[in-house]
Amino acid sequence: MARARTETVLTRRVPRTGEPSRTPDDLIVEEPLEIRLDDQLVGTTMRTPGHDFELAAGLCFTDGLLAEAPVQGVRYCATGSAVDTEFNVVTVETGGQAPAPAPRLSTASSSCGLCGSQTLDELADRLVPLPRHEPWSVEVLAGVPEAVRARQELFDRTGAVHAAAAFDRDGEVLVVREDIGRHNAVDKVVGRLLLDGALPASDRGLFVSGRASFEMVQKAWAAGFEAVVAVSAPSALAVRTASTAGLLLAGFVRPDALNLYVEPGR
Amino acid sequence: MARARTETVLTRRVPRTGEPSRTPDDLIVEEPLEIRLDDQLVGTTMRTPGHDFELAAGLCFTDGLLAEAPVQGVRYCATGSAVDTEFNVVTVETGGQAPAPAPRLSTASSSCGLCGSQTLDELADRLVPLPRHEPWSVEVLAGVPEAVRARQELFDRTGAVHAAAAFDRDGEVLVVREDIGRHNAVDKVVGRLLLDGALPASDRGLFVSGRASFEMVQKAWAAGFEAVVAVSAPSALAVRTASTAGLLLAGFVRPDALNLYVEPGR
Repeated sequence: MARARTETVLTRRVPRTGEPSRTPDDLIVEEPLEIRLDDQLVGTTMRTPGHDFELAAGLCFTDGLLAEAPVQGVRYCATGSAVDTEFNVVTVETGGQAPAPAPRLSTASSSCGLCGSQTLDELADRLVPLPRHEPWSVEVLAGVPEAVRARQELFDRTGAVHAAAAFDRDGEVLVVREDIGRHNAVDKVVGRLLLDGALPASDRGLFVSGRASFEMVQKAWAAGFEAVVAVSAPSALAVRTASTAGLLLAGFVRPDALNLYVEPGR
Repeated sequence: MARARTETVLTRRVPRTGEPSRTPDDLIVEEPLEIRLDDQLVGTTMRTPGHDFELAAGLCFTDGLLAEAPVQGVRYCATGSAVDTEFNVVTVETGGQAPAPAPRLSTASSSCGLCGSQTLDELADRLVPLPRHEPWSVEVLAGVPEAVRARQELFDRTGAVHAAAAFDRDGEVLVVREDIGRHNAVDKVVGRLLLDGALPASDRGLFVSGRASFEMVQKAWAAGFEAVVAVSAPSALAVRTASTAGLLLAGFVRPDALNLYVEPGR
């Protein structure tokens, strides 16, 4: 089983004043993961090893590849082109109930997750607006980053990973995942909920440790979250998408203040 | 011509204590760009509009798609599937000298740029180590983030974009590009140098405003930069790749100190 791990290297730390010194530094390990659906290639992503089944299942789900087919299992494969180590190829099994993944002509977009839905219109055709939901407590939303921060173990060691988390209406943090890729962290959280039979994520919020770009909101929408809490700024398209979805969107969420960009029902 | 732009929205700012207020906030605009090579689809990336020709040319170059074919021109196309506005499809023209881009089965990797070279071995087969170069001044490297910071206009307005920059051995910043995608910012810088006939970027360093993941180092290597300066942490694979390439790699570069992970020739 692939586990998140770090590698320690000796770095030469050079201060502006004073003598340089050799200092051990923990680096996050990053490896390619080839993802398959019923043994057909979906794609390859660089990721932090660990929670690979969640990542594969979550990505297939948030990209709309499952098309409501149930996940029967997820396993490592011995074959595939991205094999560098034993645990870098994963297949999601639906017993052939999911449609065959189409070859996706994508440049591995900077923001990712766009695959298969190149415009907001296409996305809106695939996803319906969320059911109306009760307002969320602003105080709960404001407290989420600190609650997740306490559980960002890999970030503490390496400073090089993003986190995503699912939380409930009381602000309880239910799942935290860290990954070198922001989108992977979200897919791992969604994958965990999917494998637990906990989707759609109604009465749940999604936390992201960075910015809320279009794809983060798209993934939250696909999974049925009611709220997205981002530590940093949203993009204009993220705000428009959240508004179409009926998804609460809070940005720059810090202990002392937050910005509400979309507040359904207000 | 597509230009980077922002949209102003009214956000409800809620402080922990005191009254909420409606506050205007500038959001970065994010739109899909469909990139073609000799009119054949390469892929689609979410990006900050602006410098689209550089992005398209740079991406084709850093991904190895040009295979040394010269760029004869870059232009907007009227057709394509990502057209949302007039300026979201770009083709890079080599008069058919570049090989046809292969359909790339990629999940739009979280870290991107991996397309076509799924492992470090494949990359090392395609790229040769950089020529030996003189050591860089640590003082110059340490000063780069502040020099670039002064030119991060979109970041100042939105807090939502990464920057990449090319700098010389005296620390002079030659090109700065900002984009919602880290990889796009790098591709725009590389594309600018390519269109200026300034590749390989020997005697040049590449600055990135975030982390140095594998793909950032891979792109720097492909463009022939001698040094990568990152504000944040590198990954273990980034360090290994820089070492294979013979590329200086500095991380956590701040005014008061920096960490040197790879120092060729030392």
